[in-house]
Amino acid sequence: MQANNPDKPTLAARLIGGEIAALARAISVVERDAPNALNILRAIRPHLGQAVVVGFTGPPGAGKSTLVNAFVAELRKRGKTVGVVAVDPSSPITGGAVLGDRIRMAEHTLDEGVFIRSLASRGALGGLSAAAAQVADLMDAAGRDVVVLETVGAGQSEVEMARIADVRIVIAAPGLGDDIQAIKAGILEIADILVVNKSDQPLASQTKRQLDAMLSLRAPSDHPVPVLSTDAIARTGVAELADAIDECAAYNERNDDRSALAGRSRHLLAQAVAQAAESHVMTSRSDAIEAIIQAVQEAQIGLSDAARQVLDTLHKELAD
Amino acid sequence: MQANNPDKPTLAARLIGGEIAALARAISVVERDAPNALNILRAIRPHLGQAVVVGFTGPPGAGKSTLVNAFVAELRKRGKTVGVVAVDPSSPITGGAVLGDRIRMAEHTLDEGVFIRSLASRGALGGLSAAAAQVADLMDAAGRDVVVLETVGAGQSEVEMARIADVRIVIAAPGLGDDIQAIKAGILEIADILVVNKSDQPLASQTKRQLDAMLSLRAPSDHPVPVLSTDAIARTGVAELADAIDECAAYNERNDDRSALAGRSRHLLAQAVAQAAESHVMTSRSDAIEAIIQAVQEAQIGLSDAARQVLDTLHKELAD
Repeated sequence: MQANNPDKPTLAARLIGGEIAALARAISVVERDAPNALNILRAIRPHLGQAVVVGFTGPPGAGKSTLVNAFVAELRKRGKTVGVVAVDPSSPITGGAVLGDRIRMAEHTLDEGVFIRSLASRGALGGLSAAAAQVADLMDAAGRDVVVLETVGAGQSEVEMARIADVRIVIAAPGLGDDIQAIKAGILEIADILVVNKSDQPLASQTKRQLDAMLSLRAPSDHPVPVLSTDAIARTGVAELADAIDECAAYNERNDDRSALAGRSRHLLAQAVAQAAESHVMTSRSDAIEAIIQAVQEAQIGLSDAARQVLDTLHKELAD
Repeated sequence: MQANNPDKPTLAARLIGGEIAALARAISVVERDAPNALNILRAIRPHLGQAVVVGFTGPPGAGKSTLVNAFVAELRKRGKTVGVVAVDPSSPITGGAVLGDRIRMAEHTLDEGVFIRSLASRGALGGLSAAAAQVADLMDAAGRDVVVLETVGAGQSEVEMARIADVRIVIAAPGLGDDIQAIKAGILEIADILVVNKSDQPLASQTKRQLDAMLSLRAPSDHPVPVLSTDAIARTGVAELADAIDECAAYNERNDDRSALAGRSRHLLAQAVAQAAESHVMTSRSDAIEAIIQAVQEAQIGLSDAARQVLDTLHKELAD
């Protein structure tokens, strides 16, 4: 009946009231950048900042999804409601998204305390970071106690994703060996907590030692990065991980780490601008762009000058 | 004596003649975007397209560097000269590059037939793809028979790197399990050849079957993607990999895959433009940019409109 009531509460109001169907619908509206999206994002602004946003990242094979699943179960045991944003980088070729995460989270599908959303990158202006930030905000406003942001891989997009999270978990698989260097590059230094998953495997303790050794090279800190061991399948070490996340969230809040969130809009805008500029160069067939590409190809001008020329002329192109 | 001769050949001429010191120096000049860089890039243009550029990518822990090392040894056995471009994504925090690759390639350091260069991303306008493409070109012009491009991780930058390569190898570690989906997303579909490394491990044959099954879902092709097994440490399967790469390079050349290289300048320019635009938004404190960020933060405008506004005003900002 209520749905036909002319005085029915807005979608945003229902979302803020914790209605799950409204959360699902609002996410779709925002993802599609539908006309109502900005209204919703404006309406939820006073309700943000309540949830702890926990980012999980790590390479394929580290057991990330299983660990997220176990962490969610632990949170539920503790009576907390959870939102999960699973970021699935789309195939650059087919644009197809990965559905595995939803399947693996099947344990929680009948639990209203767990709300899961997978994101694909196609079409999202500003990329996945923007979409993930907005979905995390919607879950926050909907009263989820914890929002889990799960990202695949170890590339630049994960570093961007980490900027959205309040607490950043980097997962390593045992036996990285030389490749531990690759973890270090780009990802290790954003971690608040390191986790060696699959602790039952022979090389797990060696990998933990390697990570401890790597961290010991850092300048002393009053809040060093812990290296934890988990076995997500056996659910060993998961309660300790949840405790460490609580502790870290409290520390980061005390130290006003959330002020970093103020820079988030700048980041999202910068990425949206970058993506718009890139896609314009890729699709434009204007004489001006073609001439610049030709000059680059013939090494008549360098890339930095060429980029400046493109940005200089972009306003004319966009006006056409 | 020649070095003091006023009629000494140019750096580019010496590079094209195969002089290793000239190659090293030209790479440094181009990497630093020094004044002479465009002269060198222009001079080598008629000498490009001789080398086969082979891209290796895959997640940390798959044994990528060990496999590249074994592949290089195999190429040397076959009498081919090699250039290796090891792409090390810099830490976003410290800007520090990874030196592991050079250490692991120690086997080849005394061999003039193997030239190795590690790249870090800091400062490179247009990002690593641009730098890697230029270094690969220099190695090509210097007469290297094969240029190996090794990238870490499984993010967007690897997809960009793959566009530079003539033959694309994606390496998987055994036991990916559910995470095999993550490999699929974004990376699997760019592969010309899939390799399950660490074939001595228990889960290797299962992973190979999973990849075969995944590929069988594709539309039939007259040149299906082979799934090979290697044990890079024992050097098992490496000769077969080298054969498959030869075969694939010949096929791609027959099918004019190299025409894709014509689009490379556009890609590199698009990335350079994106990077310049992004870094401008991140560093500018102009009133116009601040106002747009404020409007995004308050959800007064959406990201796509905001991005367009920024691009519209960028020429004014750059003129200041």
